[in-house]
Amino acid sequence: MAHIRLPDGLQGIRAAMAYRPETAKPLNELAEILLHAPNSLTPGERELIATYVSSLNDCYFCQTVHGAIAAAHLKGDEELVRCVKADFGQAAISEKLKALLVIAGKVQKGGKQVTTADVEAARSAGATDIEIHDTVLIAAAFCMYNRYVDGLDTWQPRDVELYRQRGKKTAKEGYVAMSQEYLQQANLTPQGD
Amino acid sequence: MAHIRLPDGLQGIRAAMAYRPETAKPLNELAEILLHAPNSLTPGERELIATYVSSLNDCYFCQTVHGAIAAAHLKGDEELVRCVKADFGQAAISEKLKALLVIAGKVQKGGKQVTTADVEAARSAGATDIEIHDTVLIAAAFCMYNRYVDGLDTWQPRDVELYRQRGKKTAKEGYVAMSQEYLQQANLTPQGD
Repeated sequence: MAHIRLPDGLQGIRAAMAYRPETAKPLNELAEILLHAPNSLTPGERELIATYVSSLNDCYFCQTVHGAIAAAHLKGDEELVRCVKADFGQAAISEKLKALLVIAGKVQKGGKQVTTADVEAARSAGATDIEIHDTVLIAAAFCMYNRYVDGLDTWQPRDVELYRQRGKKTAKEGYVAMSQEYLQQANLTPQGD
Repeated sequence: MAHIRLPDGLQGIRAAMAYRPETAKPLNELAEILLHAPNSLTPGERELIATYVSSLNDCYFCQTVHGAIAAAHLKGDEELVRCVKADFGQAAISEKLKALLVIAGKVQKGGKQVTTADVEAARSAGATDIEIHDTVLIAAAFCMYNRYVDGLDTWQPRDVELYRQRGKKTAKEGYVAMSQEYLQQANLTPQGD
């Protein structure tokens, strides 16, 4: 049982978004731009950052669904996703992405944790200013999404295949298109509660 | 000096938003709905929640500007804003808002910290489901905004009068209207960096 009465049958953030479509709109647009829109960081790299931060925040729904989206972008390589969560320094990813994951991990603890040396290390590994900006904002945004999902105690079924299928579809279609699925199921009108 | 090259002369989140107008749009729309749009929680109450969470995250820019916006909504009562940050249990606010601030403080630590008892206490004090939802999302969103502002090490001048004037204007006009001021100053085209 979630902390408030959310629409039935929707997992994680979907239930919260269906409950409050007004806030769902900018939340999905933000995810679309940060994770799905064209960018010099690949969608797979950006989803790995989102997955890593969600695992640090111990959010089952977000780390599982974004891990599945990352894997879908990475030719199904679920083992790479596991490695990044467990010890990204040993994972088969670029030095640039490793340096960006260091920054993301600092942001998860708090914005002031990011040092000039962290940023210089990312630049030395080839990161541009916009890539550093987007890494900071992706990490910050998942400190929001994770807290939203867990703060309402949403339903988060342990069904790996569901997340795998959802991951493939979101990787292809993006966040705004996918949101149509569950926003149509919105059966509560919050303002009139 | 911020960690990346941001437009000159803009404080806090304004510089980051002017640098990346694509993400500024949903970030401002989210703030507009959560803090400024009509709601059974007053704008002053919602800004107090935002200010309190920003103070827990030790973000000077956010706690000062949102504290100023809260004060502007509360007939200039800056002392009340100070009391809420220092010890909201002793502040001259409703029992409902106190119960919502307990939830907001838990969300700041992590979504899983919110308990059924916290939510029941808010309900007993008169909070509706949508008010509990919005409190969780405001607190979660400020865990993002605070990390965004500090994670880029933005310029945050210690000029109380500047924040006071900005607060009055934002309280009146809202976030999306105010964003036109600084988005027009955007002088970098991030995608072409």
